[in-house]
Amino acid sequence: MYVIAVYDVGQKRVAKMLKLCRRYLNWIQNSVFEGEISEAKLLELKQEAMMIMDDEDDSLIIFKARQEKWLEKEIVGQERQNLDTFL
Amino acid sequence: MYVIAVYDVGQKRVAKMLKLCRRYLNWIQNSVFEGEISEAKLLELKQEAMMIMDDEDDSLIIFKARQEKWLEKEIVGQERQNLDTFL
Repeated sequence: MYVIAVYDVGQKRVAKMLKLCRRYLNWIQNSVFEGEISEAKLLELKQEAMMIMDDEDDSLIIFKARQEKWLEKEIVGQERQNLDTFL
Repeated sequence: MYVIAVYDVGQKRVAKMLKLCRRYLNWIQNSVFEGEISEAKLLELKQEAMMIMDDEDDSLIIFKARQEKWLEKEIVGQERQNLDTFL
């Protein structure tokens, strides 16, 4: 399964969410991640995210596509992804 | 065509990008939008975005799916979308 995950969390929780999402997916921009993941691993990710997130303020949106080929990605402007290897 | 658009732009350009994206798509979270859009309208959106964006610092990622049913959306935590009608 191919997913895109985008979080919107309070400043204090950004670093933890970034670290968590990077363990499961590829970072592509700001708070946006993508990657191939199994249902089981995605469940793990969601459970760990819920431990970090504030129920009332934070959100995590996950878009799932059964196959990556169903999604076409286009980047306008800077491709942040390239910086990831330096971080 | 169904798209998810996510921008990452400098603070000074956030308001303009938000306003632009809202004209074409539905706001779902922070800098994330989704919606059904034609190729022609998407081209317009990209062209207008390029006029706002700083070539060296900003980015706009667009994920395209030919049909919405190919994408399943799941929200963990707060569903920001609901606030949109009040803004």
